[in-house]
Amino acid sequence: MPPRELLLIPGPTPVPDPVLAQVSRQPIGHRSQELSKVLHEVVADLKWLADTSNDVFVLTASGTGAMEAAIANTINPGDHVLSLICGVFGERWAKIAEAFGAKVERVNVQPGHCIEPEVLKKKLASDTGKSIKAVTITHNETSTGVINDLEKLAQLVSEHGALSIVDAVTSFGATALPIDKWKVDLLISGSQKAMMLPPGLSFVFVSPKAWEASTKCKNPRFYFDFAKQKKSIDADTTPFTPNVSLILALNASLKLIKEEGKEACYARHKKLRDTLRAGAKALGLKLLADESCASPSVTAILPPDNISVDAIRKELKDKFKITVADGQEDLKGKIFRISHMGYVYERDMLTVLAALKESIQALSK
Amino acid sequence: MPPRELLLIPGPTPVPDPVLAQVSRQPIGHRSQELSKVLHEVVADLKWLADTSNDVFVLTASGTGAMEAAIANTINPGDHVLSLICGVFGERWAKIAEAFGAKVERVNVQPGHCIEPEVLKKKLASDTGKSIKAVTITHNETSTGVINDLEKLAQLVSEHGALSIVDAVTSFGATALPIDKWKVDLLISGSQKAMMLPPGLSFVFVSPKAWEASTKCKNPRFYFDFAKQKKSIDADTTPFTPNVSLILALNASLKLIKEEGKEACYARHKKLRDTLRAGAKALGLKLLADESCASPSVTAILPPDNISVDAIRKELKDKFKITVADGQEDLKGKIFRISHMGYVYERDMLTVLAALKESIQALSK
Repeated sequence: MPPRELLLIPGPTPVPDPVLAQVSRQPIGHRSQELSKVLHEVVADLKWLADTSNDVFVLTASGTGAMEAAIANTINPGDHVLSLICGVFGERWAKIAEAFGAKVERVNVQPGHCIEPEVLKKKLASDTGKSIKAVTITHNETSTGVINDLEKLAQLVSEHGALSIVDAVTSFGATALPIDKWKVDLLISGSQKAMMLPPGLSFVFVSPKAWEASTKCKNPRFYFDFAKQKKSIDADTTPFTPNVSLILALNASLKLIKEEGKEACYARHKKLRDTLRAGAKALGLKLLADESCASPSVTAILPPDNISVDAIRKELKDKFKITVADGQEDLKGKIFRISHMGYVYERDMLTVLAALKESIQALSK
Repeated sequence: MPPRELLLIPGPTPVPDPVLAQVSRQPIGHRSQELSKVLHEVVADLKWLADTSNDVFVLTASGTGAMEAAIANTINPGDHVLSLICGVFGERWAKIAEAFGAKVERVNVQPGHCIEPEVLKKKLASDTGKSIKAVTITHNETSTGVINDLEKLAQLVSEHGALSIVDAVTSFGATALPIDKWKVDLLISGSQKAMMLPPGLSFVFVSPKAWEASTKCKNPRFYFDFAKQKKSIDADTTPFTPNVSLILALNASLKLIKEEGKEACYARHKKLRDTLRAGAKALGLKLLADESCASPSVTAILPPDNISVDAIRKELKDKFKITVADGQEDLKGKIFRISHMGYVYERDMLTVLAALKESIQALSK
């Protein structure tokens, strides 16, 4: 009998039955009326979820593809880009911008810390010549379990005049993110996180200011080209064959979020985080991120002394069929990460905490 | 009751149950041992299907993404690219190459015709300065139902020394395509055609010569970067979160092709084509492509005088729940296209021919 797994990595996340039912259908035609109708609804619901009237493009690619789309369409070679980096995914923005010829200036903080708005404020204030063209921000840093104060950061960028380019892969759907109110220019997200779909689809929200930048951008692009995306989505279609199954599924998952209610959904995520953090502390475990910037989507936990991350992950997997994530890159073997985003409930947090307690006890013997 | 559809457009195509069962699973971790094992098998089976020892990368993107990957990694701005164009998808190569700064020289033929190897031979012979860096070829032109003689075309390109860059989106899995024997440098394909999966995954095969070109290519790229792909796939993983569901499904579909046998699978495609062509002719219909270059994957048919393509497609859809494709761009309303690739059988051809006969009779009244 194949084990009934509990997947608690920060994406892919568990998929609700009504969403899986859509993925399980025979594919429909990508130029069919049915898909056009669904795309129309999906676009409206994505805008509803992000409280925005900006354009949104649905890409058949994972989140990194959407990150490339944001950069390739708006950043010119030689542009000065400021990258705010709390971890692996913040660094990814910098690497992509460099791949497209930008001169990247990095602001790095220690793992587990967020970007203090005050730091950005000083940085931007010192840019009197307005050389900074764009600031890349990771709303929720998946590698460390840290959420940044996007409202304040984006506001500062807006006042300066640069473009704000935001990775919301693990925050979109898990916490409020009103794009228009917060003046976010480019915001990307993916399917396999709080949106509760399998991986393979991503989104990019584009403000009028970002759109204007794209018309002046010389970097080569085709598959991710905003102009092609806009022309098609305005006609309820896509420029290239999309993953039709995931678009149908996205329609279903957005309806589920509507049913639960945005605020209830965000409150659930915060409650799961609080339960997990309290439980981990009660087990005597240290958390990587401080309370003040603790992610509503994923929590990074340090292993007890004398027990390795590998051993804990193996015990959870072998004995309880629970998968949690290792740390990434420099944090590999130093933390383990438990996801609480998407189709996850209080019961799952109690379960993983109980299993964690048993595992630590077994490994301490 | 939702209609039981018969989808006969040239992709997406019907998906066999064992493949759909994989898509229907809860997603598994993208860094799990299970996925690594499957990726390892998938790569081996893709190479088996293409009779090649070249590298193959599995991209979470549709076929156009793989086309961009081929160009972005090997063509430098200013490079002279020769594009052999039989239709919409041949033109797409030219557009992508131009987007990446190439100087594109086009060889166009009338819709329904293939590229005569003699034409390419003369073109390449006249390039005494060896200025042509690459030749783009569409193996099977989906927009017109024409297959090119890839063996001869690629051989000529190889003798000249340029890179051959081949779109095999609707030929891979439908007809033999021995990459090493035919000396094809870059070959791309997609999931939702003869590979019998939903859309959202694509493949790119890279020869040592193409790999070397990629190391000298200055065009910016990140998501589709060959170096990142190679480093990961050599370790049985992917650089970014892939569509895990479609990779599991691909594993299943490749096993089905193995079970049927490559040659039997190709023979089935040819037989379906022959049945459909003979049946259409018996109904007094004209075919766009000549016998000599008729595609094993898709057949383009002209409507009878005084009946529009729209009317035929509507009748087939409304009365029989059969979806066939319109022509594209200049051929819109001038032809309709019936797919016979992937999970399609003799019965389906008899069905669509019978329905076509009824529809034409009804519309002729």
